[in-house]
This record gives sequence, structure tokens and C-alpha cells, in this order.
Amino acid sequence: MSFSKKIRELLDHHGKPSKEVYFDLENSGWVPPEVVEAMKPYYNVYGYGHPSITHRIGWEALEVVYEAKELIASSIGAKSIDEIVFTHSGTEANNLAIAGYLLANRNKRGKVIVSSIEHLSVIFPAEFYANILGFKVIRVPVNGEGFIDPEIFKYYVDRDTVLISIQMVNHEIGTVQNIRELVDIAKSVNPNIVFHTDAADAYGKMAIDVNKLGVDMMTISSHKIHGPRGVGVLYVREGINLESPIRGQLSVEKLWPGVENVPAIAGFKKAIELAFNDFDYNINHMKRLRDKLMKGIMDNVDDVLINGPIGDRRAPDNLNISFLYVEGEAITVELSLHGIYVSSGSACTSRVLEPSHVLLAIGRKHEEAHGSILFKTSRYHSEDDIDYAIEIIPKAIDRLRSISSIKPNR
Amino acid sequence: MSFSKKIRELLDHHGKPSKEVYFDLENSGWVPPEVVEAMKPYYNVYGYGHPSITHRIGWEALEVVYEAKELIASSIGAKSIDEIVFTHSGTEANNLAIAGYLLANRNKRGKVIVSSIEHLSVIFPAEFYANILGFKVIRVPVNGEGFIDPEIFKYYVDRDTVLISIQMVNHEIGTVQNIRELVDIAKSVNPNIVFHTDAADAYGKMAIDVNKLGVDMMTISSHKIHGPRGVGVLYVREGINLESPIRGQLSVEKLWPGVENVPAIAGFKKAIELAFNDFDYNINHMKRLRDKLMKGIMDNVDDVLINGPIGDRRAPDNLNISFLYVEGEAITVELSLHGIYVSSGSACTSRVLEPSHVLLAIGRKHEEAHGSILFKTSRYHSEDDIDYAIEIIPKAIDRLRSISSIKPNR
Repeated sequence: MSFSKKIRELLDHHGKPSKEVYFDLENSGWVPPEVVEAMKPYYNVYGYGHPSITHRIGWEALEVVYEAKELIASSIGAKSIDEIVFTHSGTEANNLAIAGYLLANRNKRGKVIVSSIEHLSVIFPAEFYANILGFKVIRVPVNGEGFIDPEIFKYYVDRDTVLISIQMVNHEIGTVQNIRELVDIAKSVNPNIVFHTDAADAYGKMAIDVNKLGVDMMTISSHKIHGPRGVGVLYVREGINLESPIRGQLSVEKLWPGVENVPAIAGFKKAIELAFNDFDYNINHMKRLRDKLMKGIMDNVDDVLINGPIGDRRAPDNLNISFLYVEGEAITVELSLHGIYVSSGSACTSRVLEPSHVLLAIGRKHEEAHGSILFKTSRYHSEDDIDYAIEIIPKAIDRLRSISSIKPNR
Repeated sequence: MSFSKKIRELLDHHGKPSKEVYFDLENSGWVPPEVVEAMKPYYNVYGYGHPSITHRIGWEALEVVYEAKELIASSIGAKSIDEIVFTHSGTEANNLAIAGYLLANRNKRGKVIVSSIEHLSVIFPAEFYANILGFKVIRVPVNGEGFIDPEIFKYYVDRDTVLISIQMVNHEIGTVQNIRELVDIAKSVNPNIVFHTDAADAYGKMAIDVNKLGVDMMTISSHKIHGPRGVGVLYVREGINLESPIRGQLSVEKLWPGVENVPAIAGFKKAIELAFNDFDYNINHMKRLRDKLMKGIMDNVDDVLINGPIGDRRAPDNLNISFLYVEGEAITVELSLHGIYVSSGSACTSRVLEPSHVLLAIGRKHEEAHGSILFKTSRYHSEDDIDYAIEIIPKAIDRLRSISSIKPNR
């Protein structure tokens, strides 16, 4: 039987639950109808041309590319649209920053600093290209809540350091790093250090100004704010020299070859407008529902651990809980049967069955990491969604614990 | 005034023509409503999840990824879906093939052969990574129609050769290369040579079987067959070892990190079904209209040159004509005013104002290349579209020649 038929059998057997609440927004989320509507005309009415070709359909495509760049530039305080580069994903934007810097400076050598909880699309290109090109990569440790201690950071930054990449918000445990403080430390040691921040999980969830932060490069991803997949953005401060790891025919983008995904860019533009419309209300809403969900679970389930910080230094949408004595993947499947969609470990890492490197870096044991579940709330969630989750989750955990072979040691 | 406002002024001034015929399918084309409909549910009804996460929304995403892989695999005679890798563009698929091979074999060194008319997304990564990793790149010349002479090819292939990349169909002049003959020559010299072909302009326009061709890797691009942008495919024969130039968290794809663009993959699947439905009729239709357009222009415009071969060894959709004594960009703008959309030089290269490297490689002079116009016909074009083009184009060329400063030398 073909793979797709096997999945169909699984789906038919699983059935469609009567009520559904999707919390797996870390990995990918639904795109609201207004965003899909904004994309549609760029497929077959106008703007379906190549944005660098000189005819009407090309200009219509170019118009929306520029409109989106202007909106993004103004939303983060960039100086000009020339500082906004579209790629096809946040992973690609991180690669352009890290690989792009190392390739452009391959005659320099030196030290690259990342945190131990960075997204793998920062850690892996850093280590891969550093190895090929003769740079050295250091992973700075974090504390039990995912914060970098400025005093420890000072110890790592030196005159050999050329590039630093520290996430603004951790994608798994929601830690909001004090980027400005780390930039100041770095630039005081060596003003030529280039500082990149992966803001994929911060954009649309808090105010961001690249000048107040002092960063030289910053990553944004469309699908993290209910935009379509297929669009990432790298902010590149004027004067920073990169050489893309992907080579080919350039279009509007000077740093990422190939035709721009114009309909997806039109959708991302709409998603940004929706995210920044009633911004404070949206943030408070996701935070309030997140807090309610956290309290509902902690009041009704024993033996849980919150991963990441509590309070204002945690992203407003993030909840990461380790349910002890249960396997995370069993939880995702059990909750899916009831229409609640979450991910386990690093959402992404669940497939390789390796525990999340983020949870290990904050000191969680393997078994604690394996039982971790990541929820993200959004402005689209309702009180009712949270009530339903609080009703279902304790029962699901109880059931799984009753059949689990992982016995509590007590 | 912002860039987008300037473009809006240009568009308002330009106006919308009453009749429109789009021939710029080399660069990007419209996506038919059936394809957009096939994508829509994956944005917000089902399958909007991450295809490697174990819950219902993830499985629905995985199902369509596998269905698309199965369809693509069967359409090119691949052995299994493991040989089908999704990237976000044809450019990225070419980069995965070329950069991916050189990075995986970076301790080997050796010679890389490309043709002088390859797409820049083959030539540029070959030269960029060869330079960094210590390989040598040779551009094999082509004749006046874009064909590689097997006798000359034999001269270039040697025991040092590790990788060869030759396009199946040239994107600008439609030359259909005899890939099987070149593969046989290469493998007879050294069976370990890895042979890649860029089939972005061949797929959906002619029958392709990777085993009959004998190629080890092959590139396909969604937007070349009325599929959405944001999807490229690399066929990678089992046993070929690549290391992606993009690094990060893997999902379903082992060779291209980041979340798959599931809605776009669903759309590409639909576009493939449409292209292969009534395949022979579609091919004959685009060929007949292309021939009619060619005859109409040649009968009514003096001083034109056909670029590329005539007859069966030319792709059925491709027409490339140099209009002497006129600037190509002036033609694209003039025709756009009448709703006819074409591109000049290499469609892509028009932006950098450099003449197409393909046209120079087949021996065209700079001024001949500058006046070149590329048309591609499709199953969606009608007789009426061609009649309209034949009515407008001679008048447009006449007018431009009457005001041109490029005087004929006679």
C-alpha cells in the first residue's frame, strides 16, 4: 500500500472530532480567510507575473512586493526597504544571515557565538559553514529559564568574535532575551561584531525596533503570525555584507535568487495588518488565555513542570509544560483524538525522537523533555476553546498515566 | 514618494488594456482557479499543520505531501517517493543538486561540467562552491542552435570529472538536448560521474523517464506548468549523497530544512494532474499556436531572427525572436500597453540590462540579443489570442522602429 493510502487509513480510523482547538502554532497554523482572499488575485487576476519584468503584470507584482517591504520596514523601524530581504522561509532567512555572513567574510576567520537554545536553523548553518570555512562556533549556556547571564556572556565575547546570533524569543519556552543588553556588551568589546537576532517568535507578539535593539540583522517568518508559508524575511542593516548560500538569477531581491513568491508576500502583508491592528488587545488576549490555560492545567493535573520563565519575560502566547511519567507523543495523539492539537518536545524535533535541545539546555532531564507539550495561544482562540482544553487535558493525562509503563518512582 | 506609490502611478498611467494575452510563462504565469481551489483548504480547513507532527492536522498535511510525491515519482519513472525532494523553487532545487553535491564531496575535488547556456541557478552555484571548495568548472560550448556537439562533449569529459549538469530544455531558446547520448558518453568515461539535468522547462511539455534518460538528479519547478510559486522538486536517485547548502530542522524532507509549503504542494499536485490530462492534446495545442505565432510574425515583420532550433528538437511552447534595430525592453513596454505580455533577453536578465548569456553563447551579437523577445504558449491560449498578437506585434515593431535611434546599416 502506498504511503498516502496508509495515512488515509490512519485518518479514517482517527475520525474528525466534533470540537477542535489548534494550539500547535509553533510549527504552523491556519491562515484566516481574509489572508487567503488577499493572496487569490495574485494567482490569476493581477500580479501573477515576475516582479522584475517590465510589463503591467510584472509591475503589479512589484507593487505588492514593495508595499509589503514598506509595511515590514515601518513595523520594525528599518531605515529603508533595501534593508528588507524576502526568502522562502524563516529557516532560509536564518541561513542567509549566518551562512551569508560566513561566506562573505570567509577570508576573516574568527569566532561565532550562538546561544545553546537557538533554533536549529541558526545552530546548524553556523556549525556547518564554520567547519568548512575555518570559523569557530561557541554555544553560550543559558540558565534554567533560558536566559543568558550577561556576566557569563561577557566572558565569551572577545576581539576574535565576528558574529553573534541570539534569539529574541525562544520558540519553545518563550524566554524573552534582553537583546539590547547583549548587543551593548558585544559592541563594547568590538564595535565591528555583527549581531543577528531570530525574531520569528517575537514579531507580532511584542514591539520591535531594530534601532532600539541595536541589532544588525533580524529574522521574521510569515507562518508564525497566521500568514502563509513560503515567506521569510531577513532585515539586513545597510552596510552589512552577505553572500547568499543560494546562487542564481536575481530578481528584486539582491540576496536571494529566484522569483519571489508574490501571492504569499501579499498574504503575509495582510497577516501583518491583522496582527498589528488592535495590537495591544491581541497581545492581552493571547496572554490572558495562555494564563488561564496554564492555571487550568496546574490546578487539575499533578506532577507537571512549567518550562521557561513565568511573567513578563515570557512571550505572551507561549505555554510549555512537562507532564511527568507520560510520553509526549502519546499525549499529542491522545489529545488529537479529542480535537486538541499540540506538539511535543521541540515541536519540530518530535519526528527524530530526540528530546528537544532547548529543554536539555535549561537542565531538563531526558524524561522531562520527552513529556513536554508546547501550546501557543492566538487572538483567534476563544474562552470556550480554553475551557474545552482544561476539560479534556486532565482526563487525557490521567488515562495515559494509568496505562503508562513509566511508573512514578515513589 | 514611496516606491510602491511610484509603481501605482505608473500602473494608473499605463491603464488596463481591454484585451490581454500573457506569453511570459518563462518567468511566471497565472495559476488557474482549479489549482487555487486545490490549495485553499490547506490554508484553513485541513492540512494546515506541520506534516511531521503527530496529530490529525499534521497527518492531513503529510497525506498531501506524500500524494504529490507519489504522483511526481510516477510521472518521471522514479523508483520511490524517497527520490523526490521538495524545495521552495526550481532555483533551490538546482542549488541542492549542484551545491549539495559539491558540499557532500568536498574532500574529492575534480571537474564540474555545465553547458554555456545553463540557467544561472546552475552556473552560479557551480562556480561559487567550486571556487570555495577547490573544484574546477568548465562551460561546454554549444552550436548556433544551442546543441552540444557530442564529439566536443567527449573532449571535455575525463576521469577527473565528478559532476555534469546539462539542461533538458533550454529556458530561453527551447533547445531540446539529447540527454541520453550525453549521459552515455559521460558514464562510458567514468561510471561514477553524477549527471544532473535541469528539466524545469521540459516537465509537462514532453515525456520524461529518469531511467531512460539515465540521469542521477533532475530539477522540476511548479510555476513553469501553471502551478503556484514556492515549490521546486529535485529528483535524487537512491545512493546519491548530497549535503544541503541550507541547514536546519528537518521535517519530511531530509535534504531541505524548514516546514514544507503544504498548500503550494497541493496546488502543484493539481497543476500536474491538469498538465498530464490530455497530455498529447495539450502539447499539440501549444505547438500549433506557437507555430502560428511564429509564421504570423515572420510574414509580417522584416529583419527578425529566430533564436534556437526549428522543428522537433525545439520545445513545443517556445518562441524566441530577435527584432533587429529595436530595444527589447521598449518592445515589452509597448506590447504591454496593448495587453501583450512578453519578456526580453533572458526574461530574467532584463533587469540587470545585461544581454542574455544564452543568446551570446549561441553566437548572437549584443544588439541581436538586446532585441530578443521570448514567448511561451500554453494549453490555455486560444486561436484568438494568437490572432490578436499577430495583429498588434507588427504595428508595435513598426512604430518602435520609426522612432528608434538604432538605424539599420543600409
